[in-house]
Amino acid sequence: MQLWRLNLAYDGASFHGWQVQPGLRTVQGTLAAALHRLTGETVLPQGSGRTDTGVHALGQVASLSLAAPIPPERLLRALNRVLPPSIRVLRAEHAEDGFHARHSAVSKTYEYRVFVRNPGVAGKAERICSPFLAPYVYDYRRPIDPALSNAAAALVVGEHDFTSFAATDPDLTARREAQEEPNRRSNVRCILRSGWDQSQDGSLLTYRVTGSGFLHHMVRNLVGTFLEAGSGRIAPEEIPRILAKQDRAAAGPTAPARGLFLVEVHY
Amino acid sequence: MQLWRLNLAYDGASFHGWQVQPGLRTVQGTLAAALHRLTGETVLPQGSGRTDTGVHALGQVASLSLAAPIPPERLLRALNRVLPPSIRVLRAEHAEDGFHARHSAVSKTYEYRVFVRNPGVAGKAERICSPFLAPYVYDYRRPIDPALSNAAAALVVGEHDFTSFAATDPDLTARREAQEEPNRRSNVRCILRSGWDQSQDGSLLTYRVTGSGFLHHMVRNLVGTFLEAGSGRIAPEEIPRILAKQDRAAAGPTAPARGLFLVEVHY
Repeated sequence: MQLWRLNLAYDGASFHGWQVQPGLRTVQGTLAAALHRLTGETVLPQGSGRTDTGVHALGQVASLSLAAPIPPERLLRALNRVLPPSIRVLRAEHAEDGFHARHSAVSKTYEYRVFVRNPGVAGKAERICSPFLAPYVYDYRRPIDPALSNAAAALVVGEHDFTSFAATDPDLTARREAQEEPNRRSNVRCILRSGWDQSQDGSLLTYRVTGSGFLHHMVRNLVGTFLEAGSGRIAPEEIPRILAKQDRAAAGPTAPARGLFLVEVHY
Repeated sequence: MQLWRLNLAYDGASFHGWQVQPGLRTVQGTLAAALHRLTGETVLPQGSGRTDTGVHALGQVASLSLAAPIPPERLLRALNRVLPPSIRVLRAEHAEDGFHARHSAVSKTYEYRVFVRNPGVAGKAERICSPFLAPYVYDYRRPIDPALSNAAAALVVGEHDFTSFAATDPDLTARREAQEEPNRRSNVRCILRSGWDQSQDGSLLTYRVTGSGFLHHMVRNLVGTFLEAGSGRIAPEEIPRILAKQDRAAAGPTAPARGLFLVEVHY
């Protein structure tokens, strides 16, 4: 058996998330079907983590084992020929012994893209979000001050209990935690970098976060809260208080899936 | 009654083309439904021309009349609130008397985008088309020399009979011609500009064409033929001979809809 590592990009709008589900089109299921078609082998590629329905990936990583001896360049080309254009294998390589896309990961980087309607100039008409951008951004209705969002974002760097930013569906959360991180029941995570960038024309705000791990919905809940700060509905200084409350109700709403990209998994 | 002119952008992947069709989601039908919802009036917006299933628009123009007196800025915002994000109204303005999106048009500009896999460097791996670009380009498999495509494209500038580049479904073509250009049964059209540009990194080739009018599938058939030239399957100098034959079989294949954009209608 040969252990493989694949780097993948996919358009989340085309899939019911990463994880295989009966009767639904998922990234993991589509990839497994492509591998089966090419090799006849039944393998379930392990991702670095799940992405929810609608969440995109620029650099998801999957590990899997194949009996068939295939040169990496050929597996790459064959998979991209068989897969739909909404999933691309960007790299296919032999992995070192013991590599596991999820267990071996030390941190991950996500990006969240927000389209800014207000031009920031009084009296000027608001911007219109292109139909070609719409599936990949949150078209945010309210005026926003990026400096305020950025001040809020800086306050989550470090080790914190992120219960206030975790999905509250207890069944789902428990199931995910048990499967993904069986030895880590706490909601403490370490954020290494957290900040917003603005595009030159001001129309796009991008949140970038790197952390040791992320609770379910955590990035989207952080973004929803930072946008509340940016639009003046909460003060950035309230972030430590929201963290301390360990209560989902203390934080802002969940930002929509379509703006979220898994950018890179670090090993 | 107030005569209106709307400038529209839409993602063709979400629609069965422009023209209203029973039971199918079309741009014209979706726009008519939005206008009805806002004003209670039943109007069928007239486009500058139809776009086929999967063809995108950056600057489609539509004309229509409304009894309701609405300030332009308000109609723009209201339509964009009601329409799906895959259609945006970019401009809404009162039109001068007698304006008709199709009859008043003097020329149109289309763009066709081709993703180039071959890096043009011997021994270098071919490029992989991003899942986020795939719905908007033709991911072209063969190596291509843009200079050859460009030489071929230059040879259609001027007034020519484009029968060789027209869709061959006779019923469909006759129906379209009768409805769209009842007084012009000939296949002679005037091309004002026709050429290819390459992006800085070489990964994207864009064909841009401006003409007095276009036969059904004409731009896609031109592109399919220019790509045959670019990939060395025909010589660019054969274009005049292909035009002279007035036979669809003489030209290259029809390039896929997803690479085509209606960029601008000139009045």
